Amino acid sequence: MKFAVIGAGSGGQCMAAHLTQLGHEAVLYDIDQQKLHTLQKRGEILLENKLTGAYRIACITSDIQVAVTRADFVMVVTTTDAHGAVAEAMAPYIRPEQIVVLHPGHCGGAVCFAAALQKSGCQELPHIAECQTLIYGCRQIEIGHIFVTGIKKTVLLAAYPSKDTELILKKISPVYPQFRGAASVLETSMSISGCLMHVIPTLMNTNRIDAGEPFDFYMEGITPHIAGLIEDADQERVAVAEKLGVHVKNLREWLKDAYGLQPDTLYHMLQANEAYRGSAGPKDFNHRFVMEEVTGGFVPLSALGQICGIPTPVIDLFIQLAARICGKDFLWIGRTVENMGLTGKSMEEVIDLMTK
Amino acid sequence: MKFAVIGAGSGGQCMAAHLTQLGHEAVLYDIDQQKLHTLQKRGEILLENKLTGAYRIACITSDIQVAVTRADFVMVVTTTDAHGAVAEAMAPYIRPEQIVVLHPGHCGGAVCFAAALQKSGCQELPHIAECQTLIYGCRQIEIGHIFVTGIKKTVLLAAYPSKDTELILKKISPVYPQFRGAASVLETSMSISGCLMHVIPTLMNTNRIDAGEPFDFYMEGITPHIAGLIEDADQERVAVAEKLGVHVKNLREWLKDAYGLQPDTLYHMLQANEAYRGSAGPKDFNHRFVMEEVTGGFVPLSALGQICGIPTPVIDLFIQLAARICGKDFLWIGRTVENMGLTGKSMEEVIDLMTK
Repeated sequence: MKFAVIGAGSGGQCMAAHLTQLGHEAVLYDIDQQKLHTLQKRGEILLENKLTGAYRIACITSDIQVAVTRADFVMVVTTTDAHGAVAEAMAPYIRPEQIVVLHPGHCGGAVCFAAALQKSGCQELPHIAECQTLIYGCRQIEIGHIFVTGIKKTVLLAAYPSKDTELILKKISPVYPQFRGAASVLETSMSISGCLMHVIPTLMNTNRIDAGEPFDFYMEGITPHIAGLIEDADQERVAVAEKLGVHVKNLREWLKDAYGLQPDTLYHMLQANEAYRGSAGPKDFNHRFVMEEVTGGFVPLSALGQICGIPTPVIDLFIQLAARICGKDFLWIGRTVENMGLTGKSMEEVIDLMTK
Repeated sequence: MKFAVIGAGSGGQCMAAHLTQLGHEAVLYDIDQQKLHTLQKRGEILLENKLTGAYRIACITSDIQVAVTRADFVMVVTTTDAHGAVAEAMAPYIRPEQIVVLHPGHCGGAVCFAAALQKSGCQELPHIAECQTLIYGCRQIEIGHIFVTGIKKTVLLAAYPSKDTELILKKISPVYPQFRGAASVLETSMSISGCLMHVIPTLMNTNRIDAGEPFDFYMEGITPHIAGLIEDADQERVAVAEKLGVHVKNLREWLKDAYGLQPDTLYHMLQANEAYRGSAGPKDFNHRFVMEEVTGGFVPLSALGQICGIPTPVIDLFIQLAARICGKDFLWIGRTVENMGLTGKSMEEVIDLMTK
């Protein structure tokens, strides 16, 4: 099959190389000319650890038309805060029979992506799906050299509208048997884990980040009380989901399924997760662990909580803390009730919209 | 003069020894028999660094009647959260001509102490005053051995009611020329600094505290972004004070006056404050830097903000974070609007009450 991989971060590079390894055609797109130039010069992408080998990518381009035109699947592997720009760029070229998959969509991704395509003049929407999380665990050693810590055992995927989920799964399963169909994008949106695992530890390691002190993000950055805060926020997420009629796994259940870990406290499960060992903590706050995960994770979770009358005090306090530390008004730039186009909608109307 | 020093923590021990050095009679009281026994066995209190010498305390006792009866001044140097118990214990013995001074009162200390004395059956209140902060910078090396990092150059003191301030200052100035009269307890209550400098860095060093990693509280615990959070909270305090008609110094102005530091950013002023160097960070969260300073500092600041319609989002977020990390409902146990007896009172009524 033919894939466009949008975004040449560590996730996009890993996916393009892995798809090539599996015998598919991958076109890798990014707006960063410098990075593309380095990749082109290098000639191939090197995978190490759980995936191995060096793979020559069919095409590396900053021309979105070239990337999108031949693709069966358009895999969006950018940070969530770039989704609006990506949708706008591809709007003139995307066709109704193509499939766009967001890796991941975070909370409300597919709904927002569809709205952004329409706003950019796309008359007939493609099939759009969102994943609960990026299927790869990986980090970039240098451009074109990716260290793969793991491939998740199961990842939820849902289409918007949800009637398309079966069709998309059927097509993608031969490539990615790990994807499981979710009932709707409400389920994938409420099944996110990244913001919980990234925002809270990043902010709670402000002292180390300010001091320029390197730390192992999961192993040293998440101490017992920090794990407790993550669990508090996770309970809020699960409660909002239940109220919206979606049963989602809590973080511990999800870690068990995604990484095959034994059930234990969250702290001990994280300490035991070898796929997480060796992840460097952020060096500053202009990092996706805050910028992307607050706007696309905590802000919409809080917004949905507001709509259905479930308070999210721990999530809210970390939105505020992020805003103070980063000097950004996340309640203005994030996926708020207003920014998601949900102003004035009742809980029932939101459920209808997201499960249609 | 005769002093009762209530509380044999590092502050109380330092004060009892220093008063003895100055030629006054000090009776040192505590409820901790074990600690008193150690002090009695040792025979004298050793001061080191900015104050020096070994001093034999006139009387060391766990009998509040013995401590209070002969005193001209009853110096309360316990943690703020013990004020209720201290007031209750001394209520039967305290006389109207005596002077009780809270070192410090935190926010609303004298008002709450007077209410607690009355509630415990004290018919005729003594003179009651509160200080803005403890006049000593000190820490305990071991029981009976105190390392004195400094004596603050100026400390605000106000009586409740404020007409008593002059009388108290006149009597105490020969001993402590550092005390300056404040207009009222509203000014001292709004001039607090401890909660800002203690709560925020303690919570923002949860990672180190959990890991059992020792750190220099001010030098390593307060990094630039953490100093920024302190300044944000400080601005809220100053804004609430202004609305209540009190002009208070911001933290930087206060540090300049109290420690003679050059004006600079808060971060750089703290880094330059030798009196702060070498203070060990808390080893757990059952520590006055959180327990006392949230209940007696942040909670009443937030409550007064509520009454006068000035939002305190950063202070509120740290109350919430403390509550989550400590597993304590500080909005139940702290000096809330309700707990301070201010329910239903208008801003004008609160100003009247606290400036009378």
